[in-house]
Amino acid sequence: PAGLTFDLEFIQTQLNKRRPGQSSLTTQRKESDIPHIISGVFEGKTTGTPIAALFKNEDSRSKDYRELENKFRPSHADFTYEMKYGYRDHRGGGRSSARETVARVFAGAIAQLLLKNEGIIIQAYVSQVGTIKLIKTWENLNLHNTWKNSVHCPDEETAHAMEKHIELVREQGDTVGGIVTGVIQGCPAGLGEPVFDRLQADLAKAMLSINAVKGFEYGSGFSGVPMKGSEHNDPFVNLKEKIQTQKNHSGGIQGGISNGMPIYFNVGFKPVATIMKKQTTVDQQGETTEIEGKGRHDPCVVPRAVAIVEAMAALTVADHWLRNKCSMV
Amino acid sequence: PAGLTFDLEFIQTQLNKRRPGQSSLTTQRKESDIPHIISGVFEGKTTGTPIAALFKNEDSRSKDYRELENKFRPSHADFTYEMKYGYRDHRGGGRSSARETVARVFAGAIAQLLLKNEGIIIQAYVSQVGTIKLIKTWENLNLHNTWKNSVHCPDEETAHAMEKHIELVREQGDTVGGIVTGVIQGCPAGLGEPVFDRLQADLAKAMLSINAVKGFEYGSGFSGVPMKGSEHNDPFVNLKEKIQTQKNHSGGIQGGISNGMPIYFNVGFKPVATIMKKQTTVDQQGETTEIEGKGRHDPCVVPRAVAIVEAMAALTVADHWLRNKCSMV
Amino acid sequence: PAGLTFDLEFIQTQLNKRRPGQSSLTTQRKESDIPHIISGVFEGKTTGTPIAALFKNEDSRSKDYRELENKFRPSHADFTYEMKYGYRDHRGGGRSSARETVARVFAGAIAQLLLKNEGIIIQAYVSQVGTIKLIKTWENLNLHNTWKNSVHCPDEETAHAMEKHIELVREQGDTVGGIVTGVIQGCPAGLGEPVFDRLQADLAKAMLSINAVKGFEYGSGFSGVPMKGSEHNDPFVNLKEKIQTQKNHSGGIQGGISNGMPIYFNVGFKPVATIMKKQTTVDQQGETTEIEGKGRHDPCVVPRAVAIVEAMAALTVADHWLRNKCSMV
Amino acid sequence: PAGLTFDLEFIQTQLNKRRPGQSSLTTQRKESDIPHIISGVFEGKTTGTPIAALFKNEDSRSKDYRELENKFRPSHADFTYEMKYGYRDHRGGGRSSARETVARVFAGAIAQLLLKNEGIIIQAYVSQVGTIKLIKTWENLNLHNTWKNSVHCPDEETAHAMEKHIELVREQGDTVGGIVTGVIQGCPAGLGEPVFDRLQADLAKAMLSINAVKGFEYGSGFSGVPMKGSEHNDPFVNLKEKIQTQKNHSGGIQGGISNGMPIYFNVGFKPVATIMKKQTTVDQQGETTEIEGKGRHDPCVVPRAVAIVEAMAALTVADHWLRNKCSMV
Repeated sequence: PAGLTFDLEFIQTQLNKRRPGQSSLTTQRKESDIPHIISGVFEGKTTGTPIAALFKNEDSRSKDYRELENKFRPSHADFTYEMKYGYRDHRGGGRSSARETVARVFAGAIAQLLLKNEGIIIQAYVSQVGTIKLIKTWENLNLHNTWKNSVHCPDEETAHAMEKHIELVREQGDTVGGIVTGVIQGCPAGLGEPVFDRLQADLAKAMLSINAVKGFEYGSGFSGVPMKGSEHNDPFVNLKEKIQTQKNHSGGIQGGISNGMPIYFNVGFKPVATIMKKQTTVDQQGETTEIEGKGRHDPCVVPRAVAIVEAMAALTVADHWLRNKCSMV
Repeated sequence: PAGLTFDLEFIQTQLNKRRPGQSSLTTQRKESDIPHIISGVFEGKTTGTPIAALFKNEDSRSKDYRELENKFRPSHADFTYEMKYGYRDHRGGGRSSARETVARVFAGAIAQLLLKNEGIIIQAYVSQVGTIKLIKTWENLNLHNTWKNSVHCPDEETAHAMEKHIELVREQGDTVGGIVTGVIQGCPAGLGEPVFDRLQADLAKAMLSINAVKGFEYGSGFSGVPMKGSEHNDPFVNLKEKIQTQKNHSGGIQGGISNGMPIYFNVGFKPVATIMKKQTTVDQQGETTEIEGKGRHDPCVVPRAVAIVEAMAALTVADHWLRNKCSMV
Repeated sequence: PAGLTFDLEFIQTQLNKRRPGQSSLTTQRKESDIPHIISGVFEGKTTGTPIAALFKNEDSRSKDYRELENKFRPSHADFTYEMKYGYRDHRGGGRSSARETVARVFAGAIAQLLLKNEGIIIQAYVSQVGTIKLIKTWENLNLHNTWKNSVHCPDEETAHAMEKHIELVREQGDTVGGIVTGVIQGCPAGLGEPVFDRLQADLAKAMLSINAVKGFEYGSGFSGVPMKGSEHNDPFVNLKEKIQTQKNHSGGIQGGISNGMPIYFNVGFKPVATIMKKQTTVDQQGETTEIEGKGRHDPCVVPRAVAIVEAMAALTVADHWLRNKCSMV
Repeated sequence: PAGLTFDLEFIQTQLNKRRPGQSSLTTQRKESDIPHIISGVFEGKTTGTPIAALFKNEDSRSKDYRELENKFRPSHADFTYEMKYGYRDHRGGGRSSARETVARVFAGAIAQLLLKNEGIIIQAYVSQVGTIKLIKTWENLNLHNTWKNSVHCPDEETAHAMEKHIELVREQGDTVGGIVTGVIQGCPAGLGEPVFDRLQADLAKAMLSINAVKGFEYGSGFSGVPMKGSEHNDPFVNLKEKIQTQKNHSGGIQGGISNGMPIYFNVGFKPVATIMKKQTTVDQQGETTEIEGKGRHDPCVVPRAVAIVEAMAALTVADHWLRNKCSMV
C-alpha cells in the first residue's frame, strides 16, 4: 500500500539481526547488508509501486566453491538442483544459498512497519540450541533481552550455556540445530481464511520455506497430542469488555482464524549441513569421493534465524491483514 | 489432465477410510459418502474439465445445533467466524465443519490415481493416540496392515492398546489427540520449487490446513534439533546405478526439492474440541454461560484423519509433479 | 464478502435477460434457469462462504448431437478440444457450450448487488446487428428502454429494424453477428492497477472470454486512431467541486485506472457458427464429409449476450473494487 | 525453464526495435537500453532461476518534469495515480511511464527464444498511422521488410506516406495514433484454456495492458460483425495429411484454443497524450491552469510499439505453451 512511512532505521536494525559477522558465533563473512532501494519509495514514503532493493555480495570468495563444481555436498541442494534443472550454478549465492534470506528480512521489516501501525508486534527468540533448552515460556520472559546476547535467547543464563555449546561445536568443526520460538501480539480477531489458507497453514508454509527448518508447531503443538479435550479446550471469558480465552492452548487461532489472543509457535532447525570434517559423497559421474567444508559457515543457524522467523511471520500476517479487508461488505 | 482412467472403486475405498460410522471408535453418524459426479468425467475417463462432485448430508440433525445459535463453543471456530464475517450459519456442515474433509479425500483420491500411474505411492497411518506411541518406524512396519484394525495403526499390538484407550476416553465423555505419520514412496527427484514453494513447505501448509492439526515435522523433524551436522548429514552413495543417500534424515527432500528417497512426516492432532462434558463459555452478548456437547462426535480424530493426510499429501505432490513439467526446456 | 443482502429477485431478472426461449428471436429451448443455491447464503445474506449454485438442463436433446461424435463442426471448438485433450465429450452442455454463460450471469448479478451498494451501475445494450447500426451514442439514449424489445436495443426504431433483420437471417437458415455496448456509471476514481492489470486490460480479457467475441474497444477505441493528440486529449475541469474531464475520449480510464468518469466500451460478436445449411468439413479420420446444423440455435447471439456483457463487466469491476481496498495504508 | 540458450544478440535486436532515438520519427532521448543481467543466466544458459535485469536511465532530465509536480496532464495518469494512492512521484520513469515497456521487450525476447525452439514465430508491423492505412493483409506482405524503414511498415510506399505524416504532425507540435498488426505463425493446436483463460482473452489483456492501447480484435475482428455465419465459418479440409481450415476468419483460435492456423490481430493506439501545445487543465488544488508539453516525446507511438506488441504476444503464447504441457496425462 501507498503512504507507509519507510523507516529505514528500523529496516536496517532488522537486517543487522541477521547479518553475518555480527558475533563470534556466526560466520565471519563481512557483509554490510545495506539495501540499495531502486523503486517504490519517494521522499520517505511508499508510493504503491513494488519496492525493489539490491544487496551486494561484498565478501564472497568464489574459489571456496571451486571443489563443488563436480561434487554433491551431503544434505545440500546440489544434487536436487542438478536433477531438477539438469544444470546449475555451483558457486555460492544462488537461490539455494542462505544468502537469499537477506531479502526476506528486508521485506519482512517493511511488513512489520505496516503491522506496527496496527498495533501488531512480532518477536522471536532462540529457545533451544542442541540439547540446551529454555524452560520458561514466552509469557514468563522479557523478550527485549533477546538482543542483549549473541545467541539471541532472552534468558541470560540459558543464553550463556547456548553460547558455550555453539563454541564447543565449532571447535569440533561440527554444527548443531536449534529451535526458534515466535510470538505475535496485538493481532486482531479475524485474520486467516477458512479451509486451505488458514493462518496457521500459511505460517507453517512460511516457516518450512526457510533453509534448514524441519518442523513447525503452534499453540500447544505436539505437546497437545496426549491431552484430553477437557484439558486442552480454552474456555471463553469476558474480561475488560473483551471476549478472551482463559488460557491459550489454541495459540491464538481457532478454525484457522485469529481469535485476538497471542499467537505463538516453534520452528525446529536441523544442524547446518556444511561441516569442517571430511565426508564421503559421490561426484557428478557417480564416483565415490570425499569432500570437506571450506569457507566461513555458521556452526549454528538459529541466532541469525531469529530475524528470518520474525520476517516470515510478519509477511504472513500482513498478507492476511490485507486479505481480511474484504471479508465483510 | 485429460485421459486419466477414473477408477471409482479406488476413490470409494479412500472415501470409506474417512467415512463416519465405520467402527465403534468413530462418530455414529451414518453417511454413505458416495460422490455424485457432475462434471469432468466421460465414459470412464477425465476430459480435462474440472471434476465436480456433490456429497449429500444424509444424517445431520440440525436440532443438535440449536443451542449453538447463541453460544461460542470453546476451541471451535464459532467465535472467530463471528468476528471475521459478523454473521454466521450456526448449523453444522459449513466450512468449519470436519465434513468438508470428504471433498479433500475425493480430490486426493483422484490425485492418487494420477500419481500411481507414475509409480508414486502415498500411505499414512496412526502412530500415536494420547500417550500411546508406536515405537517402530515406518521402514519396520507392514503398512498394508494399517487397514486391518479400526484405529488404523499397522502394528496389531499397539493398535489394540490405542483402541482400548479411545474407548475409555469416550466413556469419560472426553476426547484425545494423536499423530498420523505419512510416507511417500517412489517420488522422483526434482519435485518442489526453490525459495518459497519448497515441497516440505507446501506439505506443511497442506497438513496445517486440516482441522485440529497443531504441528508438522518431516524427516528427522524436531528430533534432528539436538543432532550434530556430522551425525545428521546423509552421505550420498551410488547404489544399483542410482545416486541415493545412505540414510534419510533429510526425509527425501533437500533444498526444498525431492531427492528420490522416501518422504516421511508426522502430523500432530489436538483432541477434538466437542466433548460430552459441561464447559463454561460466553454467549454472543458476552454473558457467561455453560455448554455441553450434543450430537455424535469422534472421541479421537486420528483414525479417520489417516485418509485425509493421504489425500492432502497426494494433492501436494500432484501439484508439484505438474509444475515440474516446466522445469527444463 | 459476508453480509451482502442476497436479492434473488434481481438475480433472477438478470438470468431471464439471458434465458433461452424468451422471444421468437432466440433459440426455442425451454430452460427455467432457476439457480439451486447450495452454499454461501444463510437467511437472505451472504456468509462469506463461496456461493455455489446448480442450474439443471431441462430441455437438452442429446440425439441432436449424435452426428457430432465423429465430425468437426466448422468454427466450433470440436477440433481444438480434440487436439488439446485427445478426448472429448461430443454432447452439448460442456465448457465450450454457450450454456456455461448462465453461470457468468449468476455470478455477475451478485457482483452487481455489491456494486449497486457502492453506487456503481452497469448497463449494456445491442448497438449493431449485421449491418444495422445504432447511430446515437449512449449519452443520447434512455438505457431503460433496452429491455422493452426482444433485441435489447434502447432505440425503438433501430430495434425494430434489427428484429426484422434477425428474422430474415433465421428464415435463410443462417446467422449474423452484432455489437454490444457496455456502460459503467458511478465508478469511483482509483480502480485498476498499474502495468499489467489495468482496468481496461481486465475488461478486455473478460469480454474476449465470451463465446463468439472477436473484438473489444473502450472510450474512443479504434476511432481514436486517426485523431490528433490535441483533439483526443480530455482537458480536466473543476465542475461542482469535483475534478472531471470536459469530454471523455479516455472512456473513464487513464493510465489503467478509473478517473471517475463513465466507462464505456464495445464488444464485437461474430455470427453464430451453427447454421441450418450444409457445410463441408472433415471427420475424426480426416475424411471429407458434410454436416448440417440440427437443434435449436440462436440466429444472432447479441440479444442474449447483453446480460453476459453486463455480468462480465460487473465481475471485473467488483474484483478491482476489492483489490483497491488495499491501495492505501 | 532451465537450459535455454540465452541469445543476447537476439535480445538486444528486439530491444533496439523499441529503443528511443533510433530515428527522426521517435523521441530524441538517447538510451542504450543494454540489460544488466543480475540473475538466472550462467555460462550462456538459463538456470531456472528467475531472470532479472536492470536498465539504467541515461538521458532523463528531471527538470522537464518540475512543472508536473502540481498539475494534472490531460489524458495522462497523473490524476488517477493521485486518486488511487493519495501520493505520487511526479518525475518521469515510474510505472505509468512508457519507459516500463523496455522490461516487456526484454522478457518478451526471452519468451521468443523459447518459442523459436518450438517453431513458433511472432511478428508485428505498423498497419495504420492516423488516416493512412496499409491495404494489403499480412499474407500478401513480406514481413521481413518491416525493419527496412523507420516507421516499421512492411510496404515501402505506405511506409513512406506514414513517415511524411508523422513528420508533419510533429512539426505541428501534435501527435497521432495508429494500428499495429500482430501475426503468430507455427503455433501448434491446443494452446489456450476453456472458459476464462482463452488464448484470445489473454492476448487481449496483454495488448490492452500496453500504454495508449484503445482496442483489440483478432481474426475477422469487428469486420466479422456484419457477416453471415455461412460466409464467416471456416470449413475444415485435409491438406497434406494435416487438418486445416480453408480460410481463416477464426484467426487461428476456435473455442479459445489455437487450431494450428496462423493467429493474427490488430491493436489500436490513441495519439500520444503529451503534445507541444498549450492545454487547459487543473492543478492539485483544483484551480484551472495551463500546461505545455516539454521534454522529448514521440509524435506517434506505433513505430516503437511494434516490438512491444511482439513481446506481449510472445509472453502470452509462452505462458500458454507451458500451461498446455499439463493438458493430457
